[in-house]
Amino acid sequence: MKLYELAMTPSARRVNIFLKELGLDEQEIGLKRESLNLRAGDNLSDQFKAISVNGRIPVLALDDGQTLCESVAICRYFDEITAPAHSLFGDTPLEKAQVEMWQRICELQGLFVAFQAFRNITKVYEDRERCVEAWGQECSGIVNLAT
Amino acid sequence: MKLYELAMTPSARRVNIFLKELGLDEQEIGLKRESLNLRAGDNLSDQFKAISVNGRIPVLALDDGQTLCESVAICRYFDEITAPAHSLFGDTPLEKAQVEMWQRICELQGLFVAFQAFRNITKVYEDRERCVEAWGQECSGIVNLAT
Repeated sequence: MKLYELAMTPSARRVNIFLKELGLDEQEIGLKRESLNLRAGDNLSDQFKAISVNGRIPVLALDDGQTLCESVAICRYFDEITAPAHSLFGDTPLEKAQVEMWQRICELQGLFVAFQAFRNITKVYEDRERCVEAWGQECSGIVNLAT
Repeated sequence: MKLYELAMTPSARRVNIFLKELGLDEQEIGLKRESLNLRAGDNLSDQFKAISVNGRIPVLALDDGQTLCESVAICRYFDEITAPAHSLFGDTPLEKAQVEMWQRICELQGLFVAFQAFRNITKVYEDRERCVEAWGQECSGIVNLAT
């Protein structure tokens, strides 16, 4: 398996924190890594798009050539193949639903709002997306209200 | 169990389609329903906020008083307590990760972008949120590009 990532990004960190929590021995499971430079556009190449259906990192390439995008999907895959005594996604029906609920609330009402504030205000990716400063400021206000 | 919803909304429809796919007998599992009028602000009451941690519908209230928000969390709960021969969330580690991946891609790059276009352009909830027309138009363009 090979993980395409940029270690400093929130989504890649999420996978890496999850792997640490699982206590996986990366050598034992044959996990390799490749770091991409997003600002230089490594993720915009045809070669990368061929392995990443959403054009984003992280991507996990399995040994049979299949690939998985989306940090939570990658975490879920590692959780499933490791089958820990206590899953980080919950063990009982209620726990599984509660993990899903809180994860979505944190993402939809926190993380993604903060992402939109960051991208629209800093315009860090204005070479590849149109930014709307007023929306960035609105999102910034929402995140500040929630803290 | 009681499901608080507004049947016409996308999130409530998502749960209801899922229940149909599971083939659950709602009477048999003791599922009741209560419809809320969102435009009239039923979801803004203290009574509703006490059962909905994100202030949104749908909410599933369990018989012991615990409540679950977020449509996908509610779907996952029904999937788990029903334990169908083939889970709609996938059966193998790879299937489970693929379902998670595609669900997130459809939501993050499609559904939620469309929601933002709708809310910021129509200003349907401007009594409770600030709308940024330019962001709505940008989102509308992104969704149209993707179709």
